[in-house]
Amino acid sequence: MPEADLEADVEADLEADVFARDCASRETLQTVTGRWGVLALAALAESNYRFGELRRRVDGVSERMLSQTLQALERDGLVSRTVLTTIPPKVEYGLTPLGEKVAGHLTGLIEFVESNMPEVLKAREHYTRTT
Amino acid sequence: MPEADLEADVEADLEADVFARDCASRETLQTVTGRWGVLALAALAESNYRFGELRRRVDGVSERMLSQTLQALERDGLVSRTVLTTIPPKVEYGLTPLGEKVAGHLTGLIEFVESNMPEVLKAREHYTRTT
Repeated sequence: MPEADLEADVEADLEADVFARDCASRETLQTVTGRWGVLALAALAESNYRFGELRRRVDGVSERMLSQTLQALERDGLVSRTVLTTIPPKVEYGLTPLGEKVAGHLTGLIEFVESNMPEVLKAREHYTRTT
Repeated sequence: MPEADLEADVEADLEADVFARDCASRETLQTVTGRWGVLALAALAESNYRFGELRRRVDGVSERMLSQTLQALERDGLVSRTVLTTIPPKVEYGLTPLGEKVAGHLTGLIEFVESNMPEVLKAREHYTRTT
Protein backbone atom coordinates (compact mmCIF):
# COMPACT_ATOMS: atom_id res chain seq x y z
CA MET A 1 0.00 0.00 0.00
CA PRO A 2 1.48 3.44 -0.93
CA GLU A 3 2.36 5.50 2.15
CA ALA A 4 -0.30 8.19 1.49
CA ASP A 5 -3.09 5.58 1.32
CA LEU A 6 -1.82 3.98 4.49
CA GLU A 7 -1.94 7.33 6.29
CA ALA A 8 -5.46 8.08 5.10
CA ASP A 9 -6.46 4.62 6.25
CA VAL A 10 -4.98 5.12 9.69
CA GLU A 11 -6.70 8.49 10.00
CA ALA A 12 -10.11 7.09 9.10
CA ASP A 13 -9.66 4.50 11.85
CA LEU A 14 -8.83 7.07 14.51
CA GLU A 15 -11.86 7.90 16.56
CA ALA A 16 -12.57 11.43 17.70
CA ASP A 17 -11.96 11.85 21.43
CA VAL A 18 -12.78 15.09 23.25
CA PHE A 19 -10.50 14.04 26.10
CA ALA A 20 -7.46 14.35 23.83
CA ARG A 21 -6.34 17.95 23.95
CA ASP A 22 -5.53 18.24 20.24
CA CYS A 23 -8.55 16.41 18.85
CA ALA A 24 -10.66 18.61 16.57
CA SER A 25 -13.78 17.32 18.33
CA ARG A 26 -12.76 19.19 21.49
CA GLU A 27 -12.77 22.45 19.56
CA THR A 28 -16.23 21.73 18.16
CA LEU A 29 -17.50 20.75 21.60
CA GLN A 30 -16.22 24.06 22.92
CA THR A 31 -17.86 25.97 20.09
CA VAL A 32 -21.26 24.46 20.86
CA THR A 33 -20.93 24.62 24.66
CA GLY A 34 -19.21 28.00 24.79
CA ARG A 35 -20.75 30.86 26.77
CA TRP A 36 -22.67 32.20 23.76
CA GLY A 37 -22.64 29.16 21.45
CA VAL A 38 -25.03 27.19 23.60
CA LEU A 39 -27.50 30.12 23.88
CA ALA A 40 -27.29 30.98 20.17
CA LEU A 41 -28.00 27.36 19.19
CA ALA A 42 -30.86 27.09 21.69
CA ALA A 43 -32.36 30.36 20.41
CA LEU A 44 -32.11 29.25 16.77
CA ALA A 45 -33.86 26.01 17.75
CA GLU A 46 -36.94 28.18 18.44
CA SER A 47 -36.92 29.97 15.11
CA ASN A 48 -34.72 31.56 12.48
CA TYR A 49 -33.55 35.01 13.48
CA ARG A 50 -31.96 38.05 11.94
CA PHE A 51 -28.81 39.25 13.68
CA GLY A 52 -30.42 42.00 15.75
CA GLU A 53 -33.34 39.79 16.81
CA LEU A 54 -30.96 37.05 17.88
CA ARG A 55 -28.90 39.54 19.83
CA ARG A 56 -31.98 40.64 21.77
CA ARG A 57 -32.94 37.01 22.44
CA VAL A 58 -29.46 36.13 23.75
CA ASP A 59 -29.67 38.78 26.46
CA GLY A 60 -26.28 40.28 27.32
CA VAL A 61 -24.21 39.26 24.28
CA SER A 62 -22.16 41.96 22.56
CA GLU A 63 -22.35 42.48 18.81
CA ARG A 64 -18.75 41.34 18.43
CA MET A 65 -19.15 38.16 20.49
CA LEU A 66 -22.36 37.16 18.72
CA SER A 67 -20.76 37.70 15.35
CA GLN A 68 -17.72 35.58 16.30
CA THR A 69 -19.97 32.88 17.75
CA LEU A 70 -22.11 32.70 14.60
CA GLN A 71 -19.00 32.52 12.42
CA ALA A 72 -17.61 29.58 14.41
CA LEU A 73 -20.96 27.78 14.28
CA GLU A 74 -21.26 28.41 10.54
CA ARG A 75 -17.70 27.18 9.99
CA ASP A 76 -18.53 23.88 11.72
CA GLY A 77 -21.68 23.44 9.60
CA LEU A 78 -24.17 23.96 12.43
CA VAL A 79 -25.63 27.34 11.50
CA SER A 80 -26.64 28.57 8.06
CA ARG A 81 -26.70 32.14 6.90
CA THR A 82 -29.29 32.98 4.28
CA VAL A 83 -29.38 36.24 2.34
CA LEU A 84 -33.03 36.95 1.53
CA THR A 85 -33.48 38.75 -1.79
CA THR A 86 -35.68 41.47 -0.36
CA ILE A 87 -35.07 45.20 -0.84
CA PRO A 88 -33.00 45.93 1.15
CA PRO A 89 -31.56 42.38 1.41
CA LYS A 90 -31.94 40.71 4.80
CA VAL A 91 -29.67 38.13 6.37
CA GLU A 92 -31.25 35.36 8.37
CA TYR A 93 -29.59 32.77 10.59
CA GLY A 94 -30.94 29.26 11.12
CA LEU A 95 -29.84 25.75 12.04
CA THR A 96 -28.56 23.18 9.55
CA PRO A 97 -29.85 19.60 10.01
CA LEU A 98 -26.64 18.83 11.94
CA GLY A 99 -27.11 21.98 14.05
CA GLU A 100 -30.69 20.93 14.86
CA LYS A 101 -29.44 17.67 16.35
CA VAL A 102 -26.77 19.42 18.42
CA ALA A 103 -29.35 21.99 19.58
CA GLY A 104 -31.67 19.13 20.58
CA HIS A 105 -29.04 17.85 23.01
CA LEU A 106 -28.49 21.38 24.35
CA THR A 107 -32.16 22.19 24.88
CA GLY A 108 -32.53 18.90 26.77
CA LEU A 109 -29.70 19.98 29.05
CA ILE A 110 -31.06 23.53 29.43
CA GLU A 111 -34.55 22.32 30.35
CA PHE A 112 -33.03 19.97 32.91
CA VAL A 113 -30.92 22.72 34.47
CA GLU A 114 -33.80 25.22 34.50
CA SER A 115 -36.21 22.82 36.15
CA ASN A 116 -33.68 21.69 38.76
CA MET A 117 -32.58 25.14 39.92
CA PRO A 118 -34.35 24.79 43.30
CA GLU A 119 -32.08 21.79 44.07
CA VAL A 120 -28.99 23.64 42.78
CA LEU A 121 -29.76 26.70 44.91
CA LYS A 122 -30.28 24.51 47.97
CA ALA A 123 -26.86 22.94 47.34
CA ARG A 124 -25.29 26.39 47.00
CA GLU A 125 -26.75 27.50 50.32
CA HIS A 126 -25.44 24.36 51.99
CA TYR A 127 -22.00 24.83 50.41
CA THR A 128 -21.79 28.44 51.59
CA ARG A 129 -22.82 27.48 55.14
CA THR A 130 -20.32 24.61 55.42
CA THR A 131 -17.17 25.86 53.70
CA MET B 1 -51.36 37.04 53.07
CA PRO B 2 -48.28 38.43 54.98
CA GLU B 3 -45.81 40.18 52.69
CA ALA B 4 -43.02 37.60 53.23
CA ASP B 5 -45.30 34.72 52.20
CA LEU B 6 -46.44 36.66 49.20
CA GLU B 7 -42.84 37.21 48.12
CA ALA B 8 -41.96 33.53 48.55
CA ASP B 9 -45.03 32.70 46.54
CA VAL B 10 -44.07 35.03 43.72
CA GLU B 11 -40.53 33.63 43.69
CA ALA B 12 -41.72 30.04 43.47
CA ASP B 13 -43.80 31.02 40.46
CA LEU B 14 -40.87 32.57 38.60
CA GLU B 15 -39.41 30.09 36.19
CA ALA B 16 -35.70 29.82 35.59
CA ASP B 17 -34.69 31.13 32.17
CA VAL B 18 -31.14 30.83 30.85
CA PHE B 19 -31.89 33.54 28.29
CA ALA B 20 -32.24 36.14 31.06
CA ARG B 21 -28.78 37.46 31.79
CA ASP B 22 -29.19 37.58 35.57
CA CYS B 23 -30.96 34.27 36.07
CA ALA B 24 -29.00 31.90 38.33
CA SER B 25 -29.69 29.10 35.85
CA ARG B 26 -27.43 30.77 33.30
CA GLU B 27 -24.54 30.61 35.77
CA THR B 28 -25.17 26.91 36.40
CA LEU B 29 -25.45 26.23 32.68
CA GLN B 30 -22.09 27.91 32.23
CA THR B 31 -20.53 25.90 35.03
CA VAL B 32 -21.60 22.61 33.43
CA THR B 33 -20.84 23.63 29.84
CA GLY B 34 -17.63 25.53 30.61
CA ARG B 35 -14.35 24.57 28.95
CA TRP B 36 -13.39 22.20 31.80
CA GLY B 37 -16.76 21.64 33.50
CA VAL B 38 -18.11 19.57 30.64
CA LEU B 39 -14.99 17.37 30.48
CA ALA B 40 -14.79 16.95 34.27
CA LEU B 41 -18.45 15.87 34.44
CA ALA B 42 -18.04 13.49 31.49
CA ALA B 43 -14.91 11.96 33.06
CA LEU B 44 -16.64 11.51 36.43
CA ALA B 45 -19.50 9.77 34.60
CA GLU B 46 -17.00 7.00 33.79
CA SER B 47 -15.79 6.52 37.34
CA ASN B 48 -14.85 8.29 40.55
CA TYR B 49 -11.39 9.80 40.41
CA ARG B 50 -8.81 11.22 42.74
CA PHE B 51 -7.63 14.73 41.80
CA GLY B 52 -4.42 13.66 40.01
CA GLU B 53 -6.17 10.88 38.07
CA LEU B 54 -8.89 13.26 36.96
CA ARG B 55 -6.30 15.78 35.87
CA ARG B 56 -4.61 13.17 33.68
CA ARG B 57 -7.99 12.13 32.21
CA VAL B 58 -8.94 15.74 31.37
CA ASP B 59 -5.87 16.18 29.19
CA GLY B 60 -4.55 19.75 29.20
CA VAL B 61 -6.23 21.17 32.31
CA SER B 62 -4.07 23.02 34.82
CA GLU B 63 -4.16 22.18 38.52
CA ARG B 64 -5.66 25.57 39.27
CA MET B 65 -8.41 25.38 36.63
CA LEU B 66 -9.41 21.84 37.62
CA SER B 67 -9.57 22.85 41.25
CA GLN B 68 -11.76 25.89 40.47
CA THR B 69 -13.97 23.78 38.19
CA LEU B 70 -14.51 21.10 40.84
CA GLN B 71 -15.31 23.75 43.45
CA ALA B 72 -17.98 25.32 41.22
CA LEU B 73 -19.48 21.89 40.46
CA GLU B 74 -19.46 20.94 44.14
CA ARG B 75 -21.07 24.26 45.05
CA ASP B 76 -23.95 23.60 42.64
CA GLY B 77 -24.46 20.10 44.08
CA LEU B 78 -23.25 18.20 41.01
CA VAL B 79 -19.96 16.78 42.28
CA SER B 80 -19.26 15.24 45.66
CA ARG B 81 -15.93 15.17 47.44
CA THR B 82 -15.34 12.19 49.70
CA VAL B 83 -12.45 11.93 52.14
CA LEU B 84 -11.58 8.24 52.44
CA THR B 85 -10.31 7.29 55.87
CA THR B 86 -7.22 5.54 54.62
CA ILE B 87 -3.68 6.23 55.86
CA PRO B 88 -2.81 8.66 54.41
CA PRO B 89 -6.38 9.94 53.77
CA LYS B 90 -7.43 10.09 50.11
CA VAL B 91 -9.90 12.48 48.52
CA GLU B 92 -12.14 11.14 45.81
CA TYR B 93 -14.45 13.04 43.46
CA GLY B 94 -17.68 11.62 42.10
CA LEU B 95 -21.07 12.67 40.76
CA THR B 96 -24.12 13.32 42.91
CA PRO B 97 -27.45 11.93 41.61
CA LEU B 98 -28.15 15.40 40.13
CA GLY B 99 -24.67 15.48 38.58
CA GLU B 100 -25.25 12.07 37.01
CA LYS B 101 -28.30 13.38 35.18
CA VAL B 102 -26.48 16.47 33.95
CA ALA B 103 -23.54 14.30 32.86
CA GLY B 104 -25.96 12.04 30.98
CA HIS B 105 -27.04 14.99 28.83
CA LEU B 106 -23.40 15.99 28.26
CA THR B 107 -22.19 12.52 27.27
CA GLY B 108 -25.06 12.30 24.78
CA LEU B 109 -23.87 15.56 23.25
CA ILE B 110 -20.19 14.50 23.31
CA GLU B 111 -20.94 11.18 21.60
CA PHE B 112 -22.94 12.99 18.95
CA VAL B 113 -20.15 15.51 18.30
CA GLU B 114 -17.44 12.83 18.23
CA SER B 115 -19.30 10.63 15.80
CA ASN B 116 -20.20 13.52 13.50
CA MET B 117 -16.72 15.01 13.19
CA PRO B 118 -16.33 13.88 9.55
CA GLU B 119 -19.34 16.07 8.63
CA VAL B 120 -18.02 18.97 10.74
CA LEU B 121 -14.59 18.76 9.11
CA LYS B 122 -16.17 18.69 5.66
CA ALA B 123 -18.12 21.84 6.55
CA ARG B 124 -14.92 23.52 7.77
CA GLU B 125 -13.16 22.73 4.51
CA HIS B 126 -16.06 24.15 2.53
CA TYR B 127 -16.16 27.27 4.73
CA THR B 128 -12.44 27.90 4.29
CA ARG B 129 -12.70 27.49 0.52
CA THR B 130 -15.68 29.82 0.12
CA THR B 131 -15.03 32.66 2.57
